[in-house]
Amino acid sequence: MAKEKTLGLSIKKADNLAEWYPELVLKSELAEYSAVKGCMVYRPTAMSIWETIQNYFNPVIRKLGVKNAYFPLFIPESFFKKEAEHAEGFTPEVAWIEAEPGEERLAVRPTSETIMCDSFARWVRSWRDLPLRINQWCNVVRWETKQTRLFLRGREFLWQEGHCLYATEAEADKEVALFMDEYVKLVETHLAIPVIVGKKTRKETFAGAKYSLTMEALMPDGKSLQCGTSHNLGQGFVKAFNITFLDKDEQTKHPFHTSWGISTRLIGAVAMTHSDDKGLVLPPKVAPNKVVIVPIIFEDSREKVMAVASQLADALSAHEPILDDRDGYSPGWKYNEWELKGVPLRVEIGPKDVEKQQCVIVRRDTGEKAFVPLANAHDAVDKMLTEMQQALFDKAKAFLDANIVEVKDWKDFLKQTAARKLVLADFCGEPSCEEKIKDKTEGVTSRCIASDKKHGTVCVQCGEPAKMSVYFAKAY
Amino acid sequence: MAKEKTLGLSIKKADNLAEWYPELVLKSELAEYSAVKGCMVYRPTAMSIWETIQNYFNPVIRKLGVKNAYFPLFIPESFFKKEAEHAEGFTPEVAWIEAEPGEERLAVRPTSETIMCDSFARWVRSWRDLPLRINQWCNVVRWETKQTRLFLRGREFLWQEGHCLYATEAEADKEVALFMDEYVKLVETHLAIPVIVGKKTRKETFAGAKYSLTMEALMPDGKSLQCGTSHNLGQGFVKAFNITFLDKDEQTKHPFHTSWGISTRLIGAVAMTHSDDKGLVLPPKVAPNKVVIVPIIFEDSREKVMAVASQLADALSAHEPILDDRDGYSPGWKYNEWELKGVPLRVEIGPKDVEKQQCVIVRRDTGEKAFVPLANAHDAVDKMLTEMQQALFDKAKAFLDANIVEVKDWKDFLKQTAARKLVLADFCGEPSCEEKIKDKTEGVTSRCIASDKKHGTVCVQCGEPAKMSVYFAKAY
Repeated sequence: MAKEKTLGLSIKKADNLAEWYPELVLKSELAEYSAVKGCMVYRPTAMSIWETIQNYFNPVIRKLGVKNAYFPLFIPESFFKKEAEHAEGFTPEVAWIEAEPGEERLAVRPTSETIMCDSFARWVRSWRDLPLRINQWCNVVRWETKQTRLFLRGREFLWQEGHCLYATEAEADKEVALFMDEYVKLVETHLAIPVIVGKKTRKETFAGAKYSLTMEALMPDGKSLQCGTSHNLGQGFVKAFNITFLDKDEQTKHPFHTSWGISTRLIGAVAMTHSDDKGLVLPPKVAPNKVVIVPIIFEDSREKVMAVASQLADALSAHEPILDDRDGYSPGWKYNEWELKGVPLRVEIGPKDVEKQQCVIVRRDTGEKAFVPLANAHDAVDKMLTEMQQALFDKAKAFLDANIVEVKDWKDFLKQTAARKLVLADFCGEPSCEEKIKDKTEGVTSRCIASDKKHGTVCVQCGEPAKMSVYFAKAY
Repeated sequence: MAKEKTLGLSIKKADNLAEWYPELVLKSELAEYSAVKGCMVYRPTAMSIWETIQNYFNPVIRKLGVKNAYFPLFIPESFFKKEAEHAEGFTPEVAWIEAEPGEERLAVRPTSETIMCDSFARWVRSWRDLPLRINQWCNVVRWETKQTRLFLRGREFLWQEGHCLYATEAEADKEVALFMDEYVKLVETHLAIPVIVGKKTRKETFAGAKYSLTMEALMPDGKSLQCGTSHNLGQGFVKAFNITFLDKDEQTKHPFHTSWGISTRLIGAVAMTHSDDKGLVLPPKVAPNKVVIVPIIFEDSREKVMAVASQLADALSAHEPILDDRDGYSPGWKYNEWELKGVPLRVEIGPKDVEKQQCVIVRRDTGEKAFVPLANAHDAVDKMLTEMQQALFDKAKAFLDANIVEVKDWKDFLKQTAARKLVLADFCGEPSCEEKIKDKTEGVTSRCIASDKKHGTVCVQCGEPAKMSVYFAKAY
């Protein structure tokens, strides 16, 4: 059977997610490997998802006072070394340009705190210049030595990085949370991915940050995926780059610094979360084409079926429908192809449907069929797209909720993490203890601190006093 | 006088364009130099212009069947060397990544023909896969050794590069022209820059192309600026990367290849073309804020003036108005600042205007003032923005037309090129002759072939038979 079905996936999601995922990404034509190790090609469907994210998010942040800019790809080595923790955190994975004789070595940006702060020092003079909120959409490079995975971990990826300066720490704290809230809205409403949100433990905090907020999604194999972060960077970079402003009280002060980012990793998250053994499943809001119309052609009725199919395509034009009128492919073949490629709704129209003035609408995620009068097709499509968007979120939310397990002792911690649960446990907060947890579990790490949870008294691993309740899981 | 006016430009455009231009770009906050030699920071106004170009152009090319994708920043050295002319043309200005032991050297992309063709060889199998039209918006790096200029020539810039494959050469030719037509519409309707369009001479053709179309704008100092190109790449890359397809006739064939690009150089073009001694002038269609409202505040009328100013801001919200209600700055200081920063229209509203229920609208380019009843402000603003957009184009067009000079002999060629005219002359087409022209004139180059012009019999420089009529000028 499997060999006949040349279009489908050969690996089942439930059997082996680690092998199913790359097959899904490649066969659905989201992406392909490139000749450059660790780098990938973003094919049109993936780019369209990213552009949808950009088109949603740009107006959101503009309203919050953010302006887009663009800073150089290359960062002088000396900049990089000005903030000690940051340098230590990033240096192992920096790609360097072959230097010309007598010129300073240049890094390919892994992130832009340093080069932006160099400019901000010139841009900020007075309290009138604050808050300063700058964002850029760009490519970044991290010379990963770990195994790379399409979208999830690569040597080059696309992201946005917002970098803001504030006169007071209270404003900085407020907006670190504000931008995280906007990320959560984005992933929940558009990508239909529920997340848990919280602070990172000290060990997992961004190199150079005072604290980091993260949103974490639970993938179907029980691994957690960090989907976006928002950092309070304190004054480390600001002091290293000597950014000061004259405040209303005539005092010269250092501003407070934040940064926040999401990346094309989200494309991998959305594909992995919703897709199935037939191929890609995309939430309607991020699918480039929300409908495919497949006319069922017989020679004697070709003309009238195609006429109705074309009218339907016009009626559904807001959803950028594909009208698949190719000769030489059977309807069944076409169904498989568009299921593989993740078009949310399929509209079938054959000669009998034309007689009855109806069409058949099939939902990609559930296979649910609706027989709909042609005159109602537009409204029915709208309704089914809305329902599908919500259903994907609800399903993912139910999975997340069902897989969070609170544990009270180390034995249960081992058992539940081995069962790939997202484990909530009391924790001492010490990096050294976290390192031990990682070692003893083959890679379980803290994902975030549960802010809304009162913690118990004893750390699940070391038995020292607990200071927080923390989500633990293996992570991508 | 000059010293009092701390906001304005210290250099006059007519006196010294080469020094006026960077002062304009820096003081109007379009951009700034970075610590990395030859790289610049795109500040928010510049990025907004680029995003406006993207938002206009993406739907245009999508309608023409183009899909956006993204390819790796890094290109293996071996790819680069597969197309001999291309390798020769680009190698001198490639930046390389420090290679890891045993790994292939990687170039930072100067352009993406090679890495895209590597993918296209996998994507194209049959005539059904053609035409293939792929575009990417990205950064590219060219390690310039010539003097860099903000936006016009730098080591890193942003651009879009479209790369298409066709089954027949006729289709390729047709679309090389089609995408150039779209570029011309973009620059003429949005940037208000008139251009001349034509093929490049052999010497100026893109490295690896069969022929190149260019659009050239005449800058105020009589230098020509290449604003966009569309290339017929023939089958050089296609054969080097072994791209084939099975045609309808069951024969295996190589497709025909084109590429086309515009870059952030256009931001420099628009600034240089329209701006003046007071600062930036932007065509309304690309200005991020089309209107600034300056209330004229006296303590006894503050409240009622601010109320009307706020109402105006609401009424004009489609134009993203700035309401400059800052204390501590005089209206005159504000006028100067927004003139420097290139806001197309200024709306002044003082207590006497409130009494008369009117406002004063001032056009940035001409200083023309209109006294407009408040109730008509919205319509008046619309009308003045439309008029300003057209007026900027008309002025630039008159300048272009007035500076094209047809010459018949070498003496006149020298005289007119020295006078910074865009010179039209008969030409033999030989690269060696073109090299001589460059040497004898301190840098005049061919800009494009005048396709609509019947050429004379003798080359203006060498006296050999003329084969074309060509525009010559110094170029940026």
